[in-house]
Amino acid sequence: MRDVLPDEVELRDRAVQTILAVYRGYGFRRIETPALESLRLLTSGEGGENEKLIFKVLKRGDELRAARERGDELADLGLRFDLTVPLARYYAQNHAKLPNPLKAIQIGPVWRAERPQRGRFRQFTQCDIDVLGVGGPVVEVELVLATSEALVTLGLSELTVRLNDRRILAAIARACGFDDARRGGFFIAFDKLDKVGPAGVIRELREAGHDAAAVATFESLLASLDPAHATIDHVMAAVTSVASPDVTSSAAALRAIIDAVAVALPPGCQVRFDPTLVRGMGYYTGPIFEIAAAGYPSSIAGGGRYDRMIGKLLGRDVPASGFSIGFERLISILGERPAGAAAAEAVGERIALLIDDPDADLAGPVSVAQRLRRDGRLVSLEVRRKNWKKQAEDLAAHGFAGWVRYNDGEPWRVRSLARPD
Amino acid sequence: MRDVLPDEVELRDRAVQTILAVYRGYGFRRIETPALESLRLLTSGEGGENEKLIFKVLKRGDELRAARERGDELADLGLRFDLTVPLARYYAQNHAKLPNPLKAIQIGPVWRAERPQRGRFRQFTQCDIDVLGVGGPVVEVELVLATSEALVTLGLSELTVRLNDRRILAAIARACGFDDARRGGFFIAFDKLDKVGPAGVIRELREAGHDAAAVATFESLLASLDPAHATIDHVMAAVTSVASPDVTSSAAALRAIIDAVAVALPPGCQVRFDPTLVRGMGYYTGPIFEIAAAGYPSSIAGGGRYDRMIGKLLGRDVPASGFSIGFERLISILGERPAGAAAAEAVGERIALLIDDPDADLAGPVSVAQRLRRDGRLVSLEVRRKNWKKQAEDLAAHGFAGWVRYNDGEPWRVRSLARPD
Repeated sequence: MRDVLPDEVELRDRAVQTILAVYRGYGFRRIETPALESLRLLTSGEGGENEKLIFKVLKRGDELRAARERGDELADLGLRFDLTVPLARYYAQNHAKLPNPLKAIQIGPVWRAERPQRGRFRQFTQCDIDVLGVGGPVVEVELVLATSEALVTLGLSELTVRLNDRRILAAIARACGFDDARRGGFFIAFDKLDKVGPAGVIRELREAGHDAAAVATFESLLASLDPAHATIDHVMAAVTSVASPDVTSSAAALRAIIDAVAVALPPGCQVRFDPTLVRGMGYYTGPIFEIAAAGYPSSIAGGGRYDRMIGKLLGRDVPASGFSIGFERLISILGERPAGAAAAEAVGERIALLIDDPDADLAGPVSVAQRLRRDGRLVSLEVRRKNWKKQAEDLAAHGFAGWVRYNDGEPWRVRSLARPD
Repeated sequence: MRDVLPDEVELRDRAVQTILAVYRGYGFRRIETPALESLRLLTSGEGGENEKLIFKVLKRGDELRAARERGDELADLGLRFDLTVPLARYYAQNHAKLPNPLKAIQIGPVWRAERPQRGRFRQFTQCDIDVLGVGGPVVEVELVLATSEALVTLGLSELTVRLNDRRILAAIARACGFDDARRGGFFIAFDKLDKVGPAGVIRELREAGHDAAAVATFESLLASLDPAHATIDHVMAAVTSVASPDVTSSAAALRAIIDAVAVALPPGCQVRFDPTLVRGMGYYTGPIFEIAAAGYPSSIAGGGRYDRMIGKLLGRDVPASGFSIGFERLISILGERPAGAAAAEAVGERIALLIDDPDADLAGPVSVAQRLRRDGRLVSLEVRRKNWKKQAEDLAAHGFAGWVRYNDGEPWRVRSLARPD
């Protein structure tokens, strides 16, 4: 966990406001769930590996005493490790009061008890949109376009949107002859293609003891799944032996998503089918998608459809699909860029109104400060120190653009901190 | 803890943006501290009664196992119960990288393990500004004016700012003959004046075993402390027997604050000295202040100077003063008011672009939606349901102003949801 200094908070706030404005334009509305959820919910299996990283909260008062005496579980609450599991609980509990479909924006902190390492924090911000209560390709089209527009508005360019469908991946596994019951393991190995290459994936599948003939069939297919060339038609031809109406309609929906996204993506961006896209979470049931930006190899946003998560809480399945921006990564990218004029303009010019004697009548300086504020400036009343040169350097270092000395009298001329005199 | 529905999130977001804009105008800058702090910090004594309400987080892994075996404390972290104790830690740790003075805005959640009751939540938002690193009345003048302007900008009116100083209260206690070592207990009893009246305060002081002559002297003084009439001069005359230079300069600073605030307060607002203002926290050392609004009896913002808190962490005292808006109370007041046109204008007109067949080509509807968004509308692509009347009612209930049916073709006329046809 870490403290955030003013410059970075302003960068984060601006990014949040930009993203919110774009998402609201697409009809999404912000919701909020509490940071603490019941441990029962958080450990129900939807969180995968993240469930091992929960910060658990001790029971309190009599309940803690009773738990100690009985040797029971001492914790009853946990800090949320993502925004998707709490969203499913929120929908199950509040759906009668919510719009249908619910188009939700969530931007907020999550917590994971990871070992501290560079660029990873134990508290970090997630930034998600989800559509709950309606299915069909129109949902993915809006998720992808809203997220792309948000990223482009923030200054990223040449986005590449990649799409696949878990049902097509399942058909590939079945067509190769992998055991349906071990499909999760197949996905986990396949997901490592980027990192370990085709030979590494095949080795992992062999070592995990998957059916040898299935692994061999998959190996011969793998070369043809190169996302630079593979088409939906090509992959569908490879899985005809196991093609069900469900697989056929997934392919048609994926085509519809890609066609509609293609016409509306911001200039310079592209969308394509990628049969090697797998994504990590176990709960995906349909289309899955990621966005990468020019100059940054790994994806900056990822998501997918998870139609069976809410059913486990509500008793009836509810269609659901979501897209998450890697907010901390986005901020580190934006932080490397020259912000300069745009940033200053966004918050206004910051100046110091200096008073020589803090115990003199303050009504005069206060009135001058109010007048300067009415012109859109950010005005801080500051007491002039004896070492003015050092004070001027400090002010400049912390983003002040200029200063006015009250005791110099009218006109209240703003002087640049570039040349303190 | 509770879920926040979209209408309330939008109200909260608007309030935060309004407050931030005003505070930034006064030269304050937002900072962020993590939700979790070490239990050692949180239980160091500055939090008063709140320290009993900490949600404690279990140690993890080997540390948890070791603590269990040794019978040690099982928790090492806790959720913050306010934003002031974390701010002191933040300043002690980061002061070299921070502006001096630091004018900090903090808006974020805090947690208290209270018994659930109406209007009290176990997670709630605090909204604070603090000035660290510089003393003098200029600080309180800016804190009071910034907070007043924020509240007036949010629509509250006829604010009353009340001010007092802990050093004047201490002089009253000493002049009456109360034991210096028991001053905390005297403040706690005096602070209940609003609730139990003068007789109740005197009874509590007697029952607590304070010096009987001191209680009697205080009783005779109490009537003259009526905030409607009492002046600083009057109170200073009553404490001349114990007046130190420190008390005299506190009175002068309080006069300077009140005079400067009086000339710059928004129209219809007033500021006054209130010798019966005590405030709850033990850490205050100087000026203390509260703001109430017309129509709402209890205060909506409160704060004061706490010059000795940071010294306990840093090893040297740092002047510090802060003002906190009761954010949840503010939201409940704003939520009762007719939001109407202003609210809709703030987020834009929300409309539904209805498509009849979700599996038809989506490129057309997507382009129309983009065109409608460029006119500043919030456009949600929605699939038209068979029961359109019910769907139109639902849309209207959730804040949609109008709809466009894609299959009707051009011109894409927005029709009002007041008359769905």
